[in-house]
Amino acid sequence: MEALDYHAEERRKAEFDVEEMKIVWAGSRQAYEISDRVARLVASDPVFRKDNRTMLSRKDLFKDTLRKAAHAWKRIIELRLSEEEASKLRFFVDQPVFTDLHWGMFIPAIKGQGNEEQQQKWLPMAYKMQIIGCYAQTELGHGSNVQGLETTATFDPETDEFVIHSPTLTSSKWWPGGLGKVSTHALVYARLITDGQDHGVHGFIVQLRSLDDHLPLPGITVGDIGMKFGSGAYNSMDNGVLRFDHVRIPRDQMLMGVSQVTREGKFMQSDVPRQLVYGTMVYVRQKIVADASCALSRAVCIATRYSAVRRQFGSHNGGPETQVIDYKTQQSRLFPLLASAYAFRFVGEWLKWLYTDVTRRLGANDFSTLPEVHACTAGLKSVTTSATADAIEECRKLCGGHGYLSSSGLPELFAVYVPACTYEGDNVVLLLQVSRFLMKTVSQLGSGKKPVGTIAYMGRSEHLLQCRCEVERAEDWLKPNVILEAFEARAARMSVTCAKNLNNFPNQEEGFAQLATDLAEAAVAHVQLIIVSKFIEKLHQDIPGKGVKRQLEILFNVYALSLLHKHLGDFVTSGCITPKQGALANEQLRLLYSQVRPNAIALVDAFNYTDHYLGSVLGRYDGNVYPKLYEEAWKDPLNETVVPDGYHDYIRPILKHHIRVARL
Amino acid sequence: MEALDYHAEERRKAEFDVEEMKIVWAGSRQAYEISDRVARLVASDPVFRKDNRTMLSRKDLFKDTLRKAAHAWKRIIELRLSEEEASKLRFFVDQPVFTDLHWGMFIPAIKGQGNEEQQQKWLPMAYKMQIIGCYAQTELGHGSNVQGLETTATFDPETDEFVIHSPTLTSSKWWPGGLGKVSTHALVYARLITDGQDHGVHGFIVQLRSLDDHLPLPGITVGDIGMKFGSGAYNSMDNGVLRFDHVRIPRDQMLMGVSQVTREGKFMQSDVPRQLVYGTMVYVRQKIVADASCALSRAVCIATRYSAVRRQFGSHNGGPETQVIDYKTQQSRLFPLLASAYAFRFVGEWLKWLYTDVTRRLGANDFSTLPEVHACTAGLKSVTTSATADAIEECRKLCGGHGYLSSSGLPELFAVYVPACTYEGDNVVLLLQVSRFLMKTVSQLGSGKKPVGTIAYMGRSEHLLQCRCEVERAEDWLKPNVILEAFEARAARMSVTCAKNLNNFPNQEEGFAQLATDLAEAAVAHVQLIIVSKFIEKLHQDIPGKGVKRQLEILFNVYALSLLHKHLGDFVTSGCITPKQGALANEQLRLLYSQVRPNAIALVDAFNYTDHYLGSVLGRYDGNVYPKLYEEAWKDPLNETVVPDGYHDYIRPILKHHIRVARL
Repeated sequence: MEALDYHAEERRKAEFDVEEMKIVWAGSRQAYEISDRVARLVASDPVFRKDNRTMLSRKDLFKDTLRKAAHAWKRIIELRLSEEEASKLRFFVDQPVFTDLHWGMFIPAIKGQGNEEQQQKWLPMAYKMQIIGCYAQTELGHGSNVQGLETTATFDPETDEFVIHSPTLTSSKWWPGGLGKVSTHALVYARLITDGQDHGVHGFIVQLRSLDDHLPLPGITVGDIGMKFGSGAYNSMDNGVLRFDHVRIPRDQMLMGVSQVTREGKFMQSDVPRQLVYGTMVYVRQKIVADASCALSRAVCIATRYSAVRRQFGSHNGGPETQVIDYKTQQSRLFPLLASAYAFRFVGEWLKWLYTDVTRRLGANDFSTLPEVHACTAGLKSVTTSATADAIEECRKLCGGHGYLSSSGLPELFAVYVPACTYEGDNVVLLLQVSRFLMKTVSQLGSGKKPVGTIAYMGRSEHLLQCRCEVERAEDWLKPNVILEAFEARAARMSVTCAKNLNNFPNQEEGFAQLATDLAEAAVAHVQLIIVSKFIEKLHQDIPGKGVKRQLEILFNVYALSLLHKHLGDFVTSGCITPKQGALANEQLRLLYSQVRPNAIALVDAFNYTDHYLGSVLGRYDGNVYPKLYEEAWKDPLNETVVPDGYHDYIRPILKHHIRVARL
Repeated sequence: MEALDYHAEERRKAEFDVEEMKIVWAGSRQAYEISDRVARLVASDPVFRKDNRTMLSRKDLFKDTLRKAAHAWKRIIELRLSEEEASKLRFFVDQPVFTDLHWGMFIPAIKGQGNEEQQQKWLPMAYKMQIIGCYAQTELGHGSNVQGLETTATFDPETDEFVIHSPTLTSSKWWPGGLGKVSTHALVYARLITDGQDHGVHGFIVQLRSLDDHLPLPGITVGDIGMKFGSGAYNSMDNGVLRFDHVRIPRDQMLMGVSQVTREGKFMQSDVPRQLVYGTMVYVRQKIVADASCALSRAVCIATRYSAVRRQFGSHNGGPETQVIDYKTQQSRLFPLLASAYAFRFVGEWLKWLYTDVTRRLGANDFSTLPEVHACTAGLKSVTTSATADAIEECRKLCGGHGYLSSSGLPELFAVYVPACTYEGDNVVLLLQVSRFLMKTVSQLGSGKKPVGTIAYMGRSEHLLQCRCEVERAEDWLKPNVILEAFEARAARMSVTCAKNLNNFPNQEEGFAQLATDLAEAAVAHVQLIIVSKFIEKLHQDIPGKGVKRQLEILFNVYALSLLHKHLGDFVTSGCITPKQGALANEQLRLLYSQVRPNAIALVDAFNYTDHYLGSVLGRYDGNVYPKLYEEAWKDPLNETVVPDGYHDYIRPILKHHIRVARL
């Protein structure tokens, strides 16, 4: 029997080789194959079922999550999965859980900040999960500003121990995932104090719970911080609160890779440069950018497929109504997001390379690219996560009323995604860091120091401040070089204008404070240029497969021109393009939407998501939406009885006019 | 003992009379007093407690909601509350429930669409809640396009009955609030069929459940449609699904205010003009705009108060860190939202007047203002709800990580608010309706037909297409007339440009489809102009109280200039202002933020929200945030036991290396 496929006709329309596009999306044939295999493994395993998640109470959801984590670990061992496969498996289980922090933060931090001895002692236990660790940095009163943390680690030379203590309520550790109910150990960030002197914030390995009965050790108060956004989302995670009452740990549990405290209590900065920690930061942030393209593509996949199923208005002579994906208003909101998913994917791929490159350089004591790399990863983290959070919500709205149902998958996707805008650097704070780098670059122009990498265009700022866009007809906007120059000119001019305006202030810091908004906008312009230029680099690669390259060219143009339309004010007021050229870009954009339309379904099929991973009735591969929505509805606990619990106490007295005597 | 107030110093800074501002916000002293009294009544009643809402399972949440609805009804009767007070009481209970639809849709629809006899029969029962009604319009496959509904009501002349039937799965009624578990009756919208002829969609009163045992009547399948966005939010509401299998109702249960079916089965259009239904639409939409200002002001109140509590960076010599409300980046995101809350409030107040005016006109058979009134309410509904939904999420982000906690109140506020963008007219569809009206107005220019009301400025389009903005210095942007002309010129020019571009298409409909995005943007420009001009009208009113008017002037300027900055591309490319003038506006905006700063806390105090209504630890009146956050955390069900349920089955086997033999 042939499988039902309401999207079959849409799929036949595709003008390119979808299988080849899947490989482009995955990055390589090998990555595609691993991902495909592991995704199916997870999807076919009943333990990993997640369609009932939003109906569970907090306690049941948490228990369900523990079960999945244990089962995932069992499967990883049984199937002898490689590290990459294991990480993919956890990814496709798609439910935030303590192992995310254990593997993603606790282990990398010991690797990056522990000395050799410490690595040899702790890593084998962590790899075998004989201990479970979390990353306890943020405090109730202290988020972005790590240097403001209040927890103290005071060295006691008598006993050769550190005394970990929470001196105030606001110093309570707050937010760490896996802390609330599970972790046996935590990497605790605290102010190191030796002999009455404060040496700033350092990391300490602290055991929290007994390995015998899981009870908190003496002096430790620990618990869960309560419900968060959404009904499923991060409520599967035990984000925790933690207070220390003079808890003692041996001296060798301070991470000593970078700094040390001697037996005598002497604090020593290691000769290993502090910049090394940037390596970890680049790693974490490139992962966040990769995750952004995953979350965004998932939302876009759901909205695109449902837009082809859903019909509204435009019926002629009693025929079917028009598919909403055929409306220009729908296309102009949806297709730029589809193009962004690809754009973020490619820039994420490039960031992976950048991480390898910077690691290699750091190993060779070459710190020259660090400032540029830092600015670039900070900026990309900020811009891609903000855009993705907004895009998920936009995709939900693009699904009309039904996007509001949990079974659409979009509310939970939004709720689980948005913390990315705040964690690992608040997005606005990060943009300001980028703008500081930009201002520094501008101030050094002409000093003979040549800007490199993603900031190299500033070296041509003389040209960029004067160049005129040569677009005369709409199709001139299809040329990558024309687009690139417009984005370079906009970024350069916005930075230079900010730099000039900063000079009007008596001191730099006051200027930075007053012009913060403009500076953040200049940073966004810089980062969007990076994304545009990396997309162009992708187009220059050898891309096999019928029609694949052509599709990417179209998506590139959609991405760039929709950005240009959105930020038209920037481009026109800085004189990079004329209003007329802006109107031509818009005209071209409309033509491009018509070219995306027949390929839209195939372009989201290329993400190769299983229905399990998508977790959306609206986004089902086969498009069989309405019967399944109907079926799902009846599973709600409220439908267990025909007459609801509470009828006799609260509804009947109203109807029967007994409300005045009712005991409520 | 003096009450704790961490915001006391902030409150002392205020440069205006907060008590007078409370009256301005409420609309009148009387409105303020009622609102204040009822809010306190609700806040002090333990039955209306809502801080534990997000921890309840769906069934418990629903039961809790039924209890609150019954208690609210009891209090309304006991205290003999007026209609206005009763409605305020339901508002402050702040939990979506079936009575919202009973009072807000079922009763008004019978009033508006029933004939006199029907009103006499049904309204007294409904007022006494001897029956409970809902509004069953949307279907699984049909949302915005009411004319596409599939449910049928076929007249059977043999029995003098209508047969209500759901011919397909997609014709299942889907979404109506109060339908799933509670309503005894529904106003069902169905295609009227007499003698094989389809007369389009009409309303029918259908009994769904027995008044004796609450069981669904024969032929009726009814249930809840399942979980929605958020953990509390609309999950307290029984949005329902409903199918009819040839359900018979007497002929007189078709609402016959506008059209009738005779005993013989003859369909008759009444001589009452169809336009009368617009009256109800205007009523519903003005209420939605009023609700937008409530939701927005609530989010802004939370974010503003917490921005004064929260400190990050900027510590000098170990002193306290800087309050985040002192950062320009925070101000430039927060203060335009604060200003928008006031702007939406005033335009909502004016809409209330507009509704009275149009009702009076309709009564006198004057339909002349209807098209303009319809465009204006549709546009305001769209623009204010979209802006509010975005603003709530922005306020959440402005609270940093803690905004993600349910106890911040913001996740639930977002989840409960966003449907407003889709219901009662999808926001994009509404903008296109506005743009059609704009295009019609442009095409009639010079025909001698004078545009009136909110579109009157188009009568001066000759001037507006050529005028030049005369701003030379930043402070010129403080003049309301300068701002008004810039907004008028922008709106007029965008409409005229669209109209010209439409002429390039062979037929109008193709042009409307292709230019939909530009048309929607022109509509937004028109609507923003309305909001700006109504704010100016407010400033021209007599406003007593020290410094109150001055604050409103500042807020007006912040609102208008931040919009101008956001849409700079529109203003500059249409030649309304120069890039230089745009930069001056931005400069002025920064100065305005400094003027808002000392008044910020008092400006949100003026909303007069109780801590109960706000429902936010971060937004507490007394600013005592951190101890309360800490206290709240321990209430989570996960903290009932120290060792979590699931430890023995799922955590211990991992730690003890028994995972391979574990039965999971």
